[in-house]
Amino acid sequence: MRILVIHGPNLNLLGRREPEIYGRESLEEINEMLRRKAEELGVELRIIQSNYEGEIVTAIGEAMDWADGIIINPAAYTHTSVAIRDALAAAGLPAIEVHISNIFKREPFRHHSYISPVVDGVITGLGGYGYVLALEALVRRLSDKT
Amino acid sequence: MRILVIHGPNLNLLGRREPEIYGRESLEEINEMLRRKAEELGVELRIIQSNYEGEIVTAIGEAMDWADGIIINPAAYTHTSVAIRDALAAAGLPAIEVHISNIFKREPFRHHSYISPVVDGVITGLGGYGYVLALEALVRRLSDKT
Amino acid sequence: MRILVIHGPNLNLLGRREPEIYGRESLEEINEMLRRKAEELGVELRIIQSNYEGEIVTAIGEAMDWADGIIINPAAYTHTSVAIRDALAAAGLPAIEVHISNIFKREPFRHHSYISPVVDGVITGLGGYGYVLALEALVRRLSDKT
Amino acid sequence: MRILVIHGPNLNLLGRREPEIYGRESLEEINEMLRRKAEELGVELRIIQSNYEGEIVTAIGEAMDWADGIIINPAAYTHTSVAIRDALAAAGLPAIEVHISNIFKREPFRHHSYISPVVDGVITGLGGYGYVLALEALVRRLSDKT
Amino acid sequence: MRILVIHGPNLNLLGRREPEIYGRESLEEINEMLRRKAEELGVELRIIQSNYEGEIVTAIGEAMDWADGIIINPAAYTHTSVAIRDALAAAGLPAIEVHISNIFKREPFRHHSYISPVVDGVITGLGGYGYVLALEALVRRLSDKT
Amino acid sequence: MRILVIHGPNLNLLGRREPEIYGRESLEEINEMLRRKAEELGVELRIIQSNYEGEIVTAIGEAMDWADGIIINPAAYTHTSVAIRDALAAAGLPAIEVHISNIFKREPFRHHSYISPVVDGVITGLGGYGYVLALEALVRRLSDKT
Amino acid sequence: MRILVIHGPNLNLLGRREPEIYGRESLEEINEMLRRKAEELGVELRIIQSNYEGEIVTAIGEAMDWADGIIINPAAYTHTSVAIRDALAAAGLPAIEVHISNIFKREPFRHHSYISPVVDGVITGLGGYGYVLALEALVRRLSDKT
Amino acid sequence: MRILVIHGPNLNLLGRREPEIYGRESLEEINEMLRRKAEELGVELRIIQSNYEGEIVTAIGEAMDWADGIIINPAAYTHTSVAIRDALAAAGLPAIEVHISNIFKREPFRHHSYISPVVDGVITGLGGYGYVLALEALVRRLSDKT
Amino acid sequence: MRILVIHGPNLNLLGRREPEIYGRESLEEINEMLRRKAEELGVELRIIQSNYEGEIVTAIGEAMDWADGIIINPAAYTHTSVAIRDALAAAGLPAIEVHISNIFKREPFRHHSYISPVVDGVITGLGGYGYVLALEALVRRLSDKT
Amino acid sequence: MRILVIHGPNLNLLGRREPEIYGRESLEEINEMLRRKAEELGVELRIIQSNYEGEIVTAIGEAMDWADGIIINPAAYTHTSVAIRDALAAAGLPAIEVHISNIFKREPFRHHSYISPVVDGVITGLGGYGYVLALEALVRRLSDKT
Amino acid sequence: MRILVIHGPNLNLLGRREPEIYGRESLEEINEMLRRKAEELGVELRIIQSNYEGEIVTAIGEAMDWADGIIINPAAYTHTSVAIRDALAAAGLPAIEVHISNIFKREPFRHHSYISPVVDGVITGLGGYGYVLALEALVRRLSDKT
Amino acid sequence: MRILVIHGPNLNLLGRREPEIYGRESLEEINEMLRRKAEELGVELRIIQSNYEGEIVTAIGEAMDWADGIIINPAAYTHTSVAIRDALAAAGLPAIEVHISNIFKREPFRHHSYISPVVDGVITGLGGYGYVLALEALVRRLSDKT
Repeated sequence: MRILVIHGPNLNLLGRREPEIYGRESLEEINEMLRRKAEELGVELRIIQSNYEGEIVTAIGEAMDWADGIIINPAAYTHTSVAIRDALAAAGLPAIEVHISNIFKREPFRHHSYISPVVDGVITGLGGYGYVLALEALVRRLSDKT
Repeated sequence: MRILVIHGPNLNLLGRREPEIYGRESLEEINEMLRRKAEELGVELRIIQSNYEGEIVTAIGEAMDWADGIIINPAAYTHTSVAIRDALAAAGLPAIEVHISNIFKREPFRHHSYISPVVDGVITGLGGYGYVLALEALVRRLSDKT
Repeated sequence: MRILVIHGPNLNLLGRREPEIYGRESLEEINEMLRRKAEELGVELRIIQSNYEGEIVTAIGEAMDWADGIIINPAAYTHTSVAIRDALAAAGLPAIEVHISNIFKREPFRHHSYISPVVDGVITGLGGYGYVLALEALVRRLSDKT
Repeated sequence: MRILVIHGPNLNLLGRREPEIYGRESLEEINEMLRRKAEELGVELRIIQSNYEGEIVTAIGEAMDWADGIIINPAAYTHTSVAIRDALAAAGLPAIEVHISNIFKREPFRHHSYISPVVDGVITGLGGYGYVLALEALVRRLSDKT
Repeated sequence: MRILVIHGPNLNLLGRREPEIYGRESLEEINEMLRRKAEELGVELRIIQSNYEGEIVTAIGEAMDWADGIIINPAAYTHTSVAIRDALAAAGLPAIEVHISNIFKREPFRHHSYISPVVDGVITGLGGYGYVLALEALVRRLSDKT
Repeated sequence: MRILVIHGPNLNLLGRREPEIYGRESLEEINEMLRRKAEELGVELRIIQSNYEGEIVTAIGEAMDWADGIIINPAAYTHTSVAIRDALAAAGLPAIEVHISNIFKREPFRHHSYISPVVDGVITGLGGYGYVLALEALVRRLSDKT
Repeated sequence: MRILVIHGPNLNLLGRREPEIYGRESLEEINEMLRRKAEELGVELRIIQSNYEGEIVTAIGEAMDWADGIIINPAAYTHTSVAIRDALAAAGLPAIEVHISNIFKREPFRHHSYISPVVDGVITGLGGYGYVLALEALVRRLSDKT
Repeated sequence: MRILVIHGPNLNLLGRREPEIYGRESLEEINEMLRRKAEELGVELRIIQSNYEGEIVTAIGEAMDWADGIIINPAAYTHTSVAIRDALAAAGLPAIEVHISNIFKREPFRHHSYISPVVDGVITGLGGYGYVLALEALVRRLSDKT
Repeated sequence: MRILVIHGPNLNLLGRREPEIYGRESLEEINEMLRRKAEELGVELRIIQSNYEGEIVTAIGEAMDWADGIIINPAAYTHTSVAIRDALAAAGLPAIEVHISNIFKREPFRHHSYISPVVDGVITGLGGYGYVLALEALVRRLSDKT
Repeated sequence: MRILVIHGPNLNLLGRREPEIYGRESLEEINEMLRRKAEELGVELRIIQSNYEGEIVTAIGEAMDWADGIIINPAAYTHTSVAIRDALAAAGLPAIEVHISNIFKREPFRHHSYISPVVDGVITGLGGYGYVLALEALVRRLSDKT
Repeated sequence: MRILVIHGPNLNLLGRREPEIYGRESLEEINEMLRRKAEELGVELRIIQSNYEGEIVTAIGEAMDWADGIIINPAAYTHTSVAIRDALAAAGLPAIEVHISNIFKREPFRHHSYISPVVDGVITGLGGYGYVLALEALVRRLSDKT
Repeated sequence: MRILVIHGPNLNLLGRREPEIYGRESLEEINEMLRRKAEELGVELRIIQSNYEGEIVTAIGEAMDWADGIIINPAAYTHTSVAIRDALAAAGLPAIEVHISNIFKREPFRHHSYISPVVDGVITGLGGYGYVLALEALVRRLSDKT
């Protein structure tokens, strides 16, 4: 079982960036936690972070050829990217959307996600741990299918 | 650690109700799964289901006196109940909102939640298993605080 | 053939309540007229009136086990209750929505019904007689199916 | 008692036109059913079908001089014709609006009717039988007035 | 100087139609008053009334070949007809829009006119006399151009 | 002179609930203050608190038979309950709406009240003392009528 | 017969101000034309121009004591002044609103008038001559009443 | 304790102005009632009425130097004046907004107040007596602070 | 292969009508170009132009009995006619919508088409030549189906 | 080169008024800074502050006769005054709009300016120094034109 | 004659991606068809596909130096990219927008194109063949200009 | 003192691109002017231009490590990029937004900026010189902080 994990724009700044909103964990710490859980569950992860919408689109398109599922935190592109939405719909893989902060407590434009209608589920506001829950859920879903 | 689990209106019909949307698990099966996980985590659960907005409001208000956290699937009241929102804000307990189906794939009026801005996190579209993830996350959050 | 008739909030006040809008017939008179028509058509009616959204939701859920169809005047809940809508969709029974007054002549917020998209038909503005027409139509529809 | 029945645009295609929405009854079959009911009730019907908004407006204006009431299915003009609304308001005759399909299950632009606020009642989603119910209700209303 | 006067749908009913809104003057009386004023000003009038949007469009298109100006009361088509707007823009003749009642005192959908942005001026709420004022203004405008 | 005082959902938590918004007075203290003022004015009060929309609707309907006026703080139901609005309109009694906090300083959805258009007056943002002012005003109004 | 004529803000600049929109007539020329027509009709005019909303409100309020009717070009205040609207409604005098340019050809915010719903009629886009037409119409209306 | 009372535009016409909306009390009668209450409470009032937004803004700004609180009925400026809102926010004095009529029963544009979010409380629909209640509440608030 | 070509309202004026928007080709020249292309492709055309919405609706309904496809420039009715939309949906024939000018460069109300969602494709802004492209595309589509 | 500087309502309170938003500089200090810069640039300033919309309109109209450019901070009138917009458009002088605070960080109604579309440029959020930048830019623009 | 053809994000997946929406043709097959038509018409094509908004912007900017026209299918960027719109406006070259699927049959957010107002024409819903039609139209347009 | 200057998409085309909107200065000329001013003020500039949203996001993130402030003209991304907004908020550096043209005179979608609420100030419509003013203001602000 192979899973693509995508971190969207500015997530490379985690830990340094507005910690009252995003917490103090760095992206590397989250990835570490994810890799431990993946090992525990016996799945293979490929993790990317990109500030480029186009690079994320490309990665999703390529995942059609190798991955079994996708975990994506589209960050700012959540609210503006039809291209990432289309890539996910095109890929047709099971996918879970993650947000570190509770976007529903923030500005109104953050309450709308172009991505949510094309993924299986969404986990919001549970910090870096949300990724771990997403991995559990995705693996469970993929196992159910088999 | 004591946690209140609230199932909103019509969730008593789970398994029989539009299974293409809500799946085939009954509410009892979900509760069973939750109780097993609670035992594993060493926490005490009190589970209620109600079709009455007023009864849910009352239960949340009373939880101020005994519970450490709340897991709530407000179902239809997600989109219409300021009273439940106010109860959660009044109680001030850590809380996680759960939806069995992916509400963002459904009618536009289901995309708005009065509840999300007053809870810590939201788990959507991951079926009955979403409750289990919520329990894990809530226990982790409560442990962190201690 | 067994049919559940539901009168929503404030309909207990019919005849006394703003008669220039709702007419001078009492709820009891309407029920009497309905029972006579039911007898004539050879169907069994169970009639309830409730001011509680939760009680109406519960009655609809229970109807899954005994009724063949539903006639509902959701009154004020027409415009605010996703829970009743969900109950009707969950029950999956043939159903007709009735309004005594012509809601399209009234305040704009009364022009939208959460209920109409999940019932078979809607009869509006024809007074208490609208229930009788609904009964005729529902019996006809149920007979056609058989 | 003389009643004008108006079928709006495209209703001449009934039975052939999107039968999953409009059913398989032809307009002629509906008219036949209406005429039988009219005979039973002892009222005289004049039935027209027109694709022209202007022709419908004219027919309603002329009805001031001979008819006691109007049954109208404005079809597509329901959502776009202020002229038909104005004609009905000008005529000032008792009138009932009929829709064969449940317009509230369809595209949002079909949820608004320019006609409903100027008629006495509306019957929606009950197929061709909706006209028969409208006739019953209209005759009852006209008899009450006498 | 030749001027086309167009009366839109339902204006044939003037005097009989909701006189508390439209007054008690018949269309014939208004036309008589207009003809007298035209004679006084030495201009030729052609007056039509139509309930058909298409007929009004055609009349405007033909006016390109004979008329010097247009006075139009589009009545209900004011609010719904892009076709009449396009005809007026295509004809490119000086034109004045007239409304007998004050449409700004009425339902919100009557506050918007598709016609006003393509005419020279608008006279609203001054009863049948508004046509006479329009004729004066149009003749003055046409005289100024010469 | 007999007056019904209604406290809506979550008001039982007053004093404990978000005191920076609602102040530190408990509901019992407010009721005490109200009872003293009632005694001073020589009027009889019946005071209820309910979290159930249906229970509030029922209480208002019953008040038609015994009360001379109503003071209501609909709390969260202010913004969502057509049923309570309809009950107040049905009862037809003089009524004053009270809000402890200044709802216009809070979230936009709290700026709209379904209740305000059917009461005589509204007192907002003056804390528990607002009930006392409402009682004074209501008694004055009832006295004026006599 | 005594009539108050009010010219709103910036109309003192007429002739110099954006002549492609407002024409080349000065306010003095318009007033001259109005005075001639007034003399012809045997009515007395008082004409004011003010850039102050408050001054216009005051003038309308005082007109209750001496004037028989009002002609007002509220200019920019058309779109923003509830105070002038309230003054006109308070005065309760017959009134006609005039606009020199066709406001419906201009920015969308100019399409809404707070004033139009409280006057008898509106004349738009007919230049300075619109005032003369307004005077004719107002005198006719006042004569009809006598 | 010194309090500024501000009456906004057109309130000088009270008693003569649309009495079915504003009642038959004159402004002088209201001021008299206020002065008596002020004497009873031992506070000093300065009362102004102005039709000029700018004059009201100036008065509020000057109140920073002498007043302890403000009672304001902004009348029409309620719905249009950011300048008065800013003045009140700048002054930072305790303030109560009063409306004589119930603005929530009237046109939709009267339902929004620019002023309410910057005052302590609002009293609506209780006639001239609303000012007296405001004075009581303001004095109580100021006393509590001392 | 037989194809119906429909030109909507005012298209008879092409060449004379606002040539800076619609170009200088007359309708006859466009039809000539179309007929040549039809001959080249071996298909039969029937071409109509109508200013009447009802006539266009009728023509589409009748096309069910003889045509294989439809090319329609609904002109002004694009933005206002649900009746034409319904006719096209009823007919169920392959259809292409053509606009001579680029409607997306024009007034916002021209950006919405009731027709586009029920046709196969849309060609906009390519002048009279757009019809020729539509014919090519339609014939290709019909050939593919065979 | 002569320049008119206009300070809108409440700006006389600068320094005392909500200093966390507007800073601690008084208006006199800003004017002093402006006058020094004007001297340095060799231009003549006339500075006014007014709380009256009408006074600002008048000042702009008069500037047509003596000024070469305008710097305006319309303060609260930014969001509500069409009259000031019209005055600026009428005057036709080069103009720059200044805001001391960053209005885009504040309430949504402060994000819209009626003034911005009729000035050359806008400087927002740079405190009192924004006026100095505006003066530099205006002088540069005026010099370029010469 | 040299023409730039741009395929936007995800179009590299054509044929594999949601074939019920986008058809089964691969991008390479479409390009082949286009190259054959280009050869037939004697024009030179440069074809790019990119998932990067910035890369598309750059390509359009560079086209100013070598191309005579542009054919662009902006795919998802149609609905979100002001940058591509600005690039097309900046380049000022004749351009045609192509969509493979009929975007007006899909989600509402796909009905709006930032691109359409800055191109000459739009071809929608005609599959890969739409590019060929665009090429014909563009070449014709460019030839007309010469 | 080190400052990052960012020019957004299409700004590389300045001087050649729609000069009636953006003027005739090339980007190089603006940069030259900026560098001269920077030298004068003794600050170090790093200037980038990019058409890639992702590249701009990356540059801002990296600026956290070396820059003291940011001047940004986000061009088209002003209206669509939450990612750049988030980067600026994450970096937390003093920043000023610049627009060459007056965006408030242009299409409505250009009136909204995602960027403005997270910068200190905005300078709009003052051409290339706006960058120089921004530099002055930024240096002043940075100096004040020290």
